[in-house]
Amino acid sequence: MKEQAFFTISWKDEKIIVLDQRLLPTEEKYVELGCVEEVHRAIRNMVVRGAPLIGVTAAYGVALAAVKASRGRVRSDVKAAVEFLKTSRPTAVNLFWALERMERVLQKDCTEEDLVKCLVEEARLIEKEDVESNQCIGEFGAELLKDGFRVLTHCNAGALATAGWGTALGVVRSAVASGKRVHVYADETRPVLQGARLTAWELMKDGIPVTLIPDNAAAFLMEKGRVDCVIVGADRIAANGDVANKIGTLKLAIAARYYDIPFYVAAPRSTIDYEVSCGEEIPIEERSPDEVKNIATCKIAPCDVGVWNPAFDVTPAELVTAIVTDYGVLAPPFEKSIERIRYLER
Amino acid sequence: MKEQAFFTISWKDEKIIVLDQRLLPTEEKYVELGCVEEVHRAIRNMVVRGAPLIGVTAAYGVALAAVKASRGRVRSDVKAAVEFLKTSRPTAVNLFWALERMERVLQKDCTEEDLVKCLVEEARLIEKEDVESNQCIGEFGAELLKDGFRVLTHCNAGALATAGWGTALGVVRSAVASGKRVHVYADETRPVLQGARLTAWELMKDGIPVTLIPDNAAAFLMEKGRVDCVIVGADRIAANGDVANKIGTLKLAIAARYYDIPFYVAAPRSTIDYEVSCGEEIPIEERSPDEVKNIATCKIAPCDVGVWNPAFDVTPAELVTAIVTDYGVLAPPFEKSIERIRYLER
Repeated sequence: MKEQAFFTISWKDEKIIVLDQRLLPTEEKYVELGCVEEVHRAIRNMVVRGAPLIGVTAAYGVALAAVKASRGRVRSDVKAAVEFLKTSRPTAVNLFWALERMERVLQKDCTEEDLVKCLVEEARLIEKEDVESNQCIGEFGAELLKDGFRVLTHCNAGALATAGWGTALGVVRSAVASGKRVHVYADETRPVLQGARLTAWELMKDGIPVTLIPDNAAAFLMEKGRVDCVIVGADRIAANGDVANKIGTLKLAIAARYYDIPFYVAAPRSTIDYEVSCGEEIPIEERSPDEVKNIATCKIAPCDVGVWNPAFDVTPAELVTAIVTDYGVLAPPFEKSIERIRYLER
Repeated sequence: MKEQAFFTISWKDEKIIVLDQRLLPTEEKYVELGCVEEVHRAIRNMVVRGAPLIGVTAAYGVALAAVKASRGRVRSDVKAAVEFLKTSRPTAVNLFWALERMERVLQKDCTEEDLVKCLVEEARLIEKEDVESNQCIGEFGAELLKDGFRVLTHCNAGALATAGWGTALGVVRSAVASGKRVHVYADETRPVLQGARLTAWELMKDGIPVTLIPDNAAAFLMEKGRVDCVIVGADRIAANGDVANKIGTLKLAIAARYYDIPFYVAAPRSTIDYEVSCGEEIPIEERSPDEVKNIATCKIAPCDVGVWNPAFDVTPAELVTAIVTDYGVLAPPFEKSIERIRYLER
């Protein structure tokens, strides 16, 4: 299933192994997460990132807590791990979705030993389903891309953001796999540079043509007629279709609308938060000013300057052309199309 | 006249002294430009940058050529310097405007000795007039800002981009000088980070409140109702009001339109190119991929990734609310208001 030349996460011998994404593209280094605290820190510090991958990582974090628990403490340690991991990052709903799914396993009436097995099994299933979801998203989304399409993307919604294949880049991968030629323009995506560091890297690994641009150049690229569509991932989609995604997505969606270019969001159902009616209710993480004032060891702004550094923004549903899910392509009005897949899920 | 705690350029003892803007905000270092080749390189490599300052620097470059010329070679050396300096950067029209002004001095019927004096005098005048122009721009523009305004700006159109006072930031300075409270949000302005490195630095030096944001956060800031107007500078304004300015200006102008926020351009008349009917005719410089792939010594993208790095974009006149010049505030339709100041200039 995972055809990439790398993996983002793996459960082996009761340990979690993850690719340290902070070091890419310079270094491809895998690290072990040996306890729940390390899992929390890895999510918090973006060793792993991307909404679906955060969910998978958190699920394995709970499995790890179960495996490590002393006799008689499995249920309580797992509950504590779930609560603790919920505090790692606030915006991507896949985190809460995965943790709630793990929590539901606790309802099983079985021995502690069996419970541990079930929890590990559930985390493995979440990982496996994530890759399958992405491949479904890819197949549905590939229908939207014509041969020769030039696709602009923001941040990294690729294999690196998931357990494999990717959401936005999964669509590109599936189109390429079906024989279409696709050229990707990758927004570098300041401040954390997921586009420059991760999207460029993973597409080059797969031999998919990619051109890196500063985020600032995206509208001018559209103006020059060099963008056929935009595809991005999502961190949380409200019931009305408002989309929380990496900071800059909103600005890009506004530019796409100005130039009448389709703006697609690709995400699994686990990214949809039926409990949140609109984007305003989505908690938006603000991260450290250091992300803006420094790049690696380079100081790029006055030390004591004030900084506003929201990690995400909310794109209103009215700017979204379609949402590509593993249940199919949702068209506006999203209240209705989202309600429909909620019904299918039941 | 120059009230800043620093200067961008100075002519002293037949030498040009400039602030090396590549080193800011880490180091405030002044360097000497001793020959025309060094002036060319300083403009090309952005030791000095900003359309008005490029014009002033080029003018002094011509004066330097005159001063350095052997007897009997002043006219030919000056002509050669003018042609050579025209090749330093293509987009900012102030460069060509200043060089043509210097060239016109050659028409004087006088001795070589007097000609050298006149050329130095003309360069000094261009410098002096630039500061005065900016102060006029500032006074006209300040009328547009109300007490408590939050102004978003892109790149650096400040004292550092000019001989002093600044264009977009000149408007802010004049408003502050008249007793209004103004808060500036500075786009960091990738890839060269003029906002993070220069705008933040010069505003902090002057005690004007500034918050640095990633370019990607600008639309979300508008969405949150925290921007009262946008003010940017310009590198070249076409006769129809299309504005070439730092890459990202177009994307920002589109966002401002979406949120119905006034989008002002502040520039001296020397930035208007009456010979260019619309933005499409403005030559847009593309710069090295290294600006995008590296920050100082930090590698931030795969070495061999393709990059598109246009230094400027063109904002169509329809997105511009008004152009603040030293002749007053121009309102749409710009064909007419620009034609009117062309008439006044004659």
